[in-house]
Amino acid sequence: MRYEEFTIEGRNAVLEAFRSGKTIDRLFILDGCKDGPVQTIVREARKGDTIITFVKKERLDQMSETGKHQGVIAYAAAYEYAQVEDMLALAREKGEDPFLFILDGIEDPHNLGAIIRTANLAGAHGVIIPKRRAVGLTATVARTSAGALSYTPVAKVTNISATIEDLKKEGLWFACADMNGEVMYRCNLKGPIGLVIGNEGEGVSRLVREKCDMVATIPMKGDIDSLNASVAAGVLAFEVVRQRMN
Amino acid sequence: MRYEEFTIEGRNAVLEAFRSGKTIDRLFILDGCKDGPVQTIVREARKGDTIITFVKKERLDQMSETGKHQGVIAYAAAYEYAQVEDMLALAREKGEDPFLFILDGIEDPHNLGAIIRTANLAGAHGVIIPKRRAVGLTATVARTSAGALSYTPVAKVTNISATIEDLKKEGLWFACADMNGEVMYRCNLKGPIGLVIGNEGEGVSRLVREKCDMVATIPMKGDIDSLNASVAAGVLAFEVVRQRMN
Repeated sequence: MRYEEFTIEGRNAVLEAFRSGKTIDRLFILDGCKDGPVQTIVREARKGDTIITFVKKERLDQMSETGKHQGVIAYAAAYEYAQVEDMLALAREKGEDPFLFILDGIEDPHNLGAIIRTANLAGAHGVIIPKRRAVGLTATVARTSAGALSYTPVAKVTNISATIEDLKKEGLWFACADMNGEVMYRCNLKGPIGLVIGNEGEGVSRLVREKCDMVATIPMKGDIDSLNASVAAGVLAFEVVRQRMN
Repeated sequence: MRYEEFTIEGRNAVLEAFRSGKTIDRLFILDGCKDGPVQTIVREARKGDTIITFVKKERLDQMSETGKHQGVIAYAAAYEYAQVEDMLALAREKGEDPFLFILDGIEDPHNLGAIIRTANLAGAHGVIIPKRRAVGLTATVARTSAGALSYTPVAKVTNISATIEDLKKEGLWFACADMNGEVMYRCNLKGPIGLVIGNEGEGVSRLVREKCDMVATIPMKGDIDSLNASVAAGVLAFEVVRQRMN
């Protein structure tokens, strides 16, 4: 595993990266650029799960580190993503009930890093993040995770709701962190569980919330709205730990 | 009382400052910005005597300390550090046992902001920070606190150990968050309490740890050393909340 997040620039280099099987998180292409080599790159990108964004020249120039992007810049993942099945296998291997984090759109790399760190220390078997509208495994995430990224698998999925459905078939229950639910101390968080944590600004999306078996609420007394997302994840995670210890 | 000049940046933080009744001297808004949240801020500003200036993006970017002004920067009259006595008075007023956070050298403004946010939502009466070798109430702290800084008093003291001694005379007990102590679920965290959280890298200093009545340990299972400081503070704070609810 590497710590550097890297940028790949130029047509040949980007095409080569795709053909070598490297995981490319995001691809930026000069808006209106439609010649042969660029079309080939777009085709390769669509085979995988790369998110393609068409941008203006000024934006590409700004992003470019070499000044020689030729209309194409790719962001490769700094870390290898795991599969959800790996996490279930890890739980089986340890003889434990699966305990997963599902992050519905965390955008701040410091929050993602802190949550992976928490997941590791709470004994969770993995962290699931969505492909879109969320931060991926960047260098900042790796650094903020304080090494946890080397131990705790992180998987990227296309559709959080569908993943929850699949995991329900494996026997997992889902608790989403949100207001106006059951106070978390009264929720049964033992057994195979997925903790669902929402986006920093908007919380858990309606569709995902509806898939959850329960809404676990952190009891709050203050004047403001909500805890920082990584703090909320930590508080809820250690409530799972407490219940599992009993 | 000590005063420091203060800039508030970002929509939520500025709106929260107005709503908490803070005096805002001047408000700078991105020229042409007319969406809902900004209109609300302008309405709040017009209720008071705030001078509103519409400026170009370049100007705002120049003024910004955080780089994340979201089109809104406010200059508050001053941010007040509170006194420790104010916190005890606040607890008395609410008819509650005092619940304070003592931060032994938090250096990262994001951590300090998140901890003030947590303190507010856990129903704590104040946060005590040291004058030296720690971050103070900067714009980043205010923004990260998501408005909590407008409600939860923060005091700055010369000597954390001496403050703990003084507060013991007022009947407070002190629990420091550290490894190799009693598992927190078995600590008695009810009654008048001060939670002591250490520095990000080095934890609680020896002298301060020796002043504490107990060492509360978060049970950890993972491969790495420690939680993020603001996550650890949150986990411990809500263990206090749980015990107080029982």
